[in-house]
Amino acid sequence: MKIMVLHGPNLNLLGKREPSVYGSVTLEEINQKLAELAGELGVEICCKQSNSEGELVDLLHRAAEEADAVVFNPGAFTHYSYALRDAVSAIGIPTIEVHLSNIYSREDFRKHSVIAPVASGHICGMGVTGYLLALRAAAALAGT
Amino acid sequence: MKIMVLHGPNLNLLGKREPSVYGSVTLEEINQKLAELAGELGVEICCKQSNSEGELVDLLHRAAEEADAVVFNPGAFTHYSYALRDAVSAIGIPTIEVHLSNIYSREDFRKHSVIAPVASGHICGMGVTGYLLALRAAAALAGT
Amino acid sequence: MKIMVLHGPNLNLLGKREPSVYGSVTLEEINQKLAELAGELGVEICCKQSNSEGELVDLLHRAAEEADAVVFNPGAFTHYSYALRDAVSAIGIPTIEVHLSNIYSREDFRKHSVIAPVASGHICGMGVTGYLLALRAAAALAGT
Amino acid sequence: MKIMVLHGPNLNLLGKREPSVYGSVTLEEINQKLAELAGELGVEICCKQSNSEGELVDLLHRAAEEADAVVFNPGAFTHYSYALRDAVSAIGIPTIEVHLSNIYSREDFRKHSVIAPVASGHICGMGVTGYLLALRAAAALAGT
Amino acid sequence: MKIMVLHGPNLNLLGKREPSVYGSVTLEEINQKLAELAGELGVEICCKQSNSEGELVDLLHRAAEEADAVVFNPGAFTHYSYALRDAVSAIGIPTIEVHLSNIYSREDFRKHSVIAPVASGHICGMGVTGYLLALRAAAALAGT
Amino acid sequence: MKIMVLHGPNLNLLGKREPSVYGSVTLEEINQKLAELAGELGVEICCKQSNSEGELVDLLHRAAEEADAVVFNPGAFTHYSYALRDAVSAIGIPTIEVHLSNIYSREDFRKHSVIAPVASGHICGMGVTGYLLALRAAAALAGT
Amino acid sequence: MKIMVLHGPNLNLLGKREPSVYGSVTLEEINQKLAELAGELGVEICCKQSNSEGELVDLLHRAAEEADAVVFNPGAFTHYSYALRDAVSAIGIPTIEVHLSNIYSREDFRKHSVIAPVASGHICGMGVTGYLLALRAAAALAGT
Amino acid sequence: MKIMVLHGPNLNLLGKREPSVYGSVTLEEINQKLAELAGELGVEICCKQSNSEGELVDLLHRAAEEADAVVFNPGAFTHYSYALRDAVSAIGIPTIEVHLSNIYSREDFRKHSVIAPVASGHICGMGVTGYLLALRAAAALAGT
Amino acid sequence: MKIMVLHGPNLNLLGKREPSVYGSVTLEEINQKLAELAGELGVEICCKQSNSEGELVDLLHRAAEEADAVVFNPGAFTHYSYALRDAVSAIGIPTIEVHLSNIYSREDFRKHSVIAPVASGHICGMGVTGYLLALRAAAALAGT
Amino acid sequence: MKIMVLHGPNLNLLGKREPSVYGSVTLEEINQKLAELAGELGVEICCKQSNSEGELVDLLHRAAEEADAVVFNPGAFTHYSYALRDAVSAIGIPTIEVHLSNIYSREDFRKHSVIAPVASGHICGMGVTGYLLALRAAAALAGT
Amino acid sequence: MKIMVLHGPNLNLLGKREPSVYGSVTLEEINQKLAELAGELGVEICCKQSNSEGELVDLLHRAAEEADAVVFNPGAFTHYSYALRDAVSAIGIPTIEVHLSNIYSREDFRKHSVIAPVASGHICGMGVTGYLLALRAAAALAGT
Amino acid sequence: MKIMVLHGPNLNLLGKREPSVYGSVTLEEINQKLAELAGELGVEICCKQSNSEGELVDLLHRAAEEADAVVFNPGAFTHYSYALRDAVSAIGIPTIEVHLSNIYSREDFRKHSVIAPVASGHICGMGVTGYLLALRAAAALAGT
Repeated sequence: MKIMVLHGPNLNLLGKREPSVYGSVTLEEINQKLAELAGELGVEICCKQSNSEGELVDLLHRAAEEADAVVFNPGAFTHYSYALRDAVSAIGIPTIEVHLSNIYSREDFRKHSVIAPVASGHICGMGVTGYLLALRAAAALAGT
Repeated sequence: MKIMVLHGPNLNLLGKREPSVYGSVTLEEINQKLAELAGELGVEICCKQSNSEGELVDLLHRAAEEADAVVFNPGAFTHYSYALRDAVSAIGIPTIEVHLSNIYSREDFRKHSVIAPVASGHICGMGVTGYLLALRAAAALAGT
Repeated sequence: MKIMVLHGPNLNLLGKREPSVYGSVTLEEINQKLAELAGELGVEICCKQSNSEGELVDLLHRAAEEADAVVFNPGAFTHYSYALRDAVSAIGIPTIEVHLSNIYSREDFRKHSVIAPVASGHICGMGVTGYLLALRAAAALAGT
Repeated sequence: MKIMVLHGPNLNLLGKREPSVYGSVTLEEINQKLAELAGELGVEICCKQSNSEGELVDLLHRAAEEADAVVFNPGAFTHYSYALRDAVSAIGIPTIEVHLSNIYSREDFRKHSVIAPVASGHICGMGVTGYLLALRAAAALAGT
Repeated sequence: MKIMVLHGPNLNLLGKREPSVYGSVTLEEINQKLAELAGELGVEICCKQSNSEGELVDLLHRAAEEADAVVFNPGAFTHYSYALRDAVSAIGIPTIEVHLSNIYSREDFRKHSVIAPVASGHICGMGVTGYLLALRAAAALAGT
Repeated sequence: MKIMVLHGPNLNLLGKREPSVYGSVTLEEINQKLAELAGELGVEICCKQSNSEGELVDLLHRAAEEADAVVFNPGAFTHYSYALRDAVSAIGIPTIEVHLSNIYSREDFRKHSVIAPVASGHICGMGVTGYLLALRAAAALAGT
Repeated sequence: MKIMVLHGPNLNLLGKREPSVYGSVTLEEINQKLAELAGELGVEICCKQSNSEGELVDLLHRAAEEADAVVFNPGAFTHYSYALRDAVSAIGIPTIEVHLSNIYSREDFRKHSVIAPVASGHICGMGVTGYLLALRAAAALAGT
Repeated sequence: MKIMVLHGPNLNLLGKREPSVYGSVTLEEINQKLAELAGELGVEICCKQSNSEGELVDLLHRAAEEADAVVFNPGAFTHYSYALRDAVSAIGIPTIEVHLSNIYSREDFRKHSVIAPVASGHICGMGVTGYLLALRAAAALAGT
Repeated sequence: MKIMVLHGPNLNLLGKREPSVYGSVTLEEINQKLAELAGELGVEICCKQSNSEGELVDLLHRAAEEADAVVFNPGAFTHYSYALRDAVSAIGIPTIEVHLSNIYSREDFRKHSVIAPVASGHICGMGVTGYLLALRAAAALAGT
Repeated sequence: MKIMVLHGPNLNLLGKREPSVYGSVTLEEINQKLAELAGELGVEICCKQSNSEGELVDLLHRAAEEADAVVFNPGAFTHYSYALRDAVSAIGIPTIEVHLSNIYSREDFRKHSVIAPVASGHICGMGVTGYLLALRAAAALAGT
Repeated sequence: MKIMVLHGPNLNLLGKREPSVYGSVTLEEINQKLAELAGELGVEICCKQSNSEGELVDLLHRAAEEADAVVFNPGAFTHYSYALRDAVSAIGIPTIEVHLSNIYSREDFRKHSVIAPVASGHICGMGVTGYLLALRAAAALAGT
Repeated sequence: MKIMVLHGPNLNLLGKREPSVYGSVTLEEINQKLAELAGELGVEICCKQSNSEGELVDLLHRAAEEADAVVFNPGAFTHYSYALRDAVSAIGIPTIEVHLSNIYSREDFRKHSVIAPVASGHICGMGVTGYLLALRAAAALAGT
């Protein structure tokens, strides 16, 4: 079983910028922890980060061909990228939407996700723990 | 470590009514699975269900005294009970909000949670799997 | 055939408070007239009033077990109790929503019912006559 | 006692189009059942259908002269015809607004009636049964 | 194959009033061009114009009996006539909504069509060319 | 100089219904006073009343051919008839919108006129006096 | 009979600035024409202009003591000065609101008057003619 | 003279939770200070706290029978409990709404009280001082 | 301790205009009662009334220099004067906002105060009693 | 004459994903049919698809240099890409906006196009037929 | 070249109140720096501050007579003074709107300027630097 | 000191398209003038233009590493790119948002910038002058 992990815009700066909001863990460290859990769960993961909406759409299309589920943190695209929403809906494999921070306790524009209605699951507010739970969820749903 | 699991209004009908929406698993079966995972995680859980907002507020106050974290499915109260929101905010122990269905892909009124902004984590759309993930989250956050 | 008649919050004050709005007929007198019509229609009725949302949810769950239809005046809960809405939707027996006053000609907040979308029928504005029509409707729909 | 029954736009297609929404009973059959009940209630009814807002306003003015109450299904005009609203308000005889379908569980635009605030009663969601209840209501209110 | 072409309110003034908005072509000239294209396409057309919403509803009902598709420019009724919307939805034959001007680049009220959601096709902004395209569309869809 | 006076829906009931809102003067008496003032101003007037939106559109088109200005009380059509708005805009002769009551101090829906943006003048709140002022305005503007 | 004419902010620039919007007539010329008509009507007028909301409130209070009616062009204060609205409502003498331009065909913020609901009459869109009509209206209403 | 003091949901946690928001004074200490002032004012008070909306409705109905006025801090119910609003309106004795914090300077949902429109007085933002002022207000209004 | 009492626009008409809304007590009589209570409380007060927003801003600035707290009835400025809001926020001494009437049970525009979020306290609906409570509040808060 | 055909995000999945929404025709087959029609019309077409908003902006700029008109299905970018809107407006050659599905009968977010106000024509709801009509429109408008 | 610098309400308190928001520089110091830059740019400036909307309108009218451009910080009037907006639009000389703080990152009501649409330029968020840039802008635009 | 100048989508067409809106100066000419001013100010600038949101996010991340401040005209991305907003907020160096046109006097969608709340400064409406002022601002703020 192969799970693609997609990180959206600005997440490459994790741990380097605004630690008060996004914590001090770097994206590499998150991918590292995901790899460890993947090992435990006996699944293969492939992690990608991009600041480009178009590239993330392409990656989702590739996931439909090469993977069984997706863990997807769309970053700021969460709030307006209907292109990514349509991609998640079109590829038809379980896609778990995850956010490090509690998007419902921050600015108004973050309290609405255009991805959530078509995602198989929605996890937010628990930092790295949330990513690990999302991987478990992806593995569980991909199995069914 | 003790975790209280609170089920909100109408969840006592799980498995008996509207299976197309809420699945065919009964509340007892969910509590059963939670108990099994709790055993694995080495934590103690106590499960309660109530159709009364006031009773759920009282139970949250009791959790503040007797438990280390809460897994809370507020059911329909999610969308308007500021009393439960204030209780979650006041008791100050990690509270994970969980929903069986994807509240963001159903009627408009379900797409807004007044609990989410003060919850430590927010998980929805993954049926029973979501409850199990929420228990893991509660255990993880209660530990920190 | 058994029909449960549920009266929501403050309706116990009928005939004693604000007669200009709710008329001078007491709740007991309404129940009395309903009983008379029930006799004519050959159906059995059971009337309950409660100021507690939780209690009304429990009563609706009991109706699903013990009755064939419900006549329900949710009072002020009409405008915000999604818990009662989910209960009406979940129990799956004909439920006729009735209001003494014309909720569409009073304050703005009364012009929106969260119960109406899942009720089998919606009758308002005709005082006691409305209750009697609702009982006829419940008997008719319970029969089909 | 004479009661005018007014059917609004497109109701002439009842039973011939979109049975999944409006049922398979034709308008003639509804008028037929109304006539039977009228006989039981000892009242005289006169049934009219029109696709023209202006014609329905004229008919309401005629009702003020010739009838004691009106049963009125304004069809789609329900949602925007302030001309019909002013006519109902101006003629000052009991007017019962009735709808076959539950207008509150369909498209958003149907969930608002401009007629309801000035109608003597509002009945919806119960198909033909609703028409019969409306006739009883009109007879009852015309009597007072 | 017979296609009914319906022109809504004020279109009888085409070419005589406000040429800056609606162009200098008269309604007769448009009907003339439609007849020519109909000849090419081997279909029969019948063109009607009315300033009355009720009359247009009646004409749509007649189209359901006498024609295979409709080309319909609802004019200002586009923005509020739910009666015409229900007629288009009820008659169940392909109905192509067409507008001479780009309704999305004019006043706010024109940017919302209540007909579009139930029309088989929606063409606007291309003057007479749009009418000709709508006739082709009606012929194509009526064929399937 | 010829001025057409158009009265919209329900104004035929003036003086007979709801005197508390529309005063006790009948439409005939208003037309009578207008005729007197017309004599003083040396203009010819022609008064029409209709409950039909389509008929009023036709009458406005006739005014464009036969009159120099229009005094127009659109009644309830004021608030939603974009067909009448387009007619007023299309006919291009001065059209004075007049209302007996102060539409801005009544229900919310009356506080917005779709006719006002294209009318040459807007007079409301002064009963019959308003009609007489509107006739003076029409005569003045038709002259320029 | 004495009528106070109040001109609001920026109207002192009439005829000197933005003639395309406000015409080329100066405020003095308007006052001159008003004086002439006042002579014809046998009433006394007193004209004041101020850019200060507070001063206009004071002037309205003075009018309550010294005049029988007010003609009031509140200028931009029309759209937000509830202080002037309360003054008009409090002084209880007929106050005719007048605007040179058609406030309903300009920017959105001008399409809402907070003065209109408490004014005795509302006239706009007819330039100087509107002022003269307002004076006639004030004289007529002050007389009743 | 007897005044009932009602404390809404979560106020039992006063002084124990979120002191930064609600201060460090406990509910008992507030009741203590109220009792002292009551003594000074020569009135009798009875203090109750409940997390249940239904129970508070019942208590308000009891106040109508046993007390002359009510001091009521509805807590989070302030923002959505129309049931409590109807109770306050129905019991018809002076009810002073009081809040410890300035509800207008906190989250958006707290800036709207459904109780205020039917309360005899509204006091907020002054902590315990506000409660004492509310008691004085209740005593003053109950006397009239 | 010196407390400034500021009365906003139109309050100079108290007791002379609209007694049904504002009561029959004049502003002088209110100031008189305030002076009496001030004596009891051992504080000095200075009362000012102005219809000018700018003057009230200047007076608030003076209060910052000469007084320890302010009792402020902003009248209609309550609903839109951000200049007064910024002044209250800037001067940093306790400012108690007070209204004679219950602003939450009147027109919609009165249900929103731009001053409340920055006031130290908010009292409304209790006529003169409210003013006296506000003076007590100002004295209490100025002391801390 | 050369016409560029631009397909927006996810349209590369046409025929492979969600056939119930987008039909079973692949993008290649659509391009194939367009090429055939182009031959009939004697115009040259060049078809491109991209999931990248930036790339589509670049392609529109290239069209301004190399083509006479554009047929553009912006996919999900339709609803929020003001960058593509400005590009269409800036390049100044006829651009026909086309959608396979009826965007007005699907989710709310699809009912608003930011491209439509600056497009030369707007065609939707007719599947492949719509694309062919759009090509005819482009050829017609490019010619003028 | 003469440039008028206008400071709106409460700016006289700069440096004395709320330094965390407006900085510690006083208005005099800002005027001092502006004078220095004016010298460098070879322009004459005249600086005025007022808490009165009416006075600022008068000053803008004077600027039209005596100056070539205006630098204007409308303070809180920015958000609701349409009178000042009309003055800026009427006087027709370049007016640069400037704010010390970033009005877009503070309370919602500050995120909308009624002055910006008619200002020649809009500068905010850069404290004193912004004032200096505004003076440069005024000098540049006055020159063209 | 090194300042990055970023031009958003469609700005490469400056001077070639829609001169009535964006002026006749080309992007190259703007960069040329910026270089001249940079020379005067003794700072180094690097100018980039891109139609791709993702590319601009990458460029902002590079600026955080290589530059001391950014001058950024986000073009149409201003109104919806939360990805660019998060990038500006994350990189933590002074970023001045600049627009050639007055975005507040054009279409509604341009009147809201998602970048402004996190920009260090906001300048618009002054064409090329605005760019030069923005460069001065960036140099000034980078220095502090």
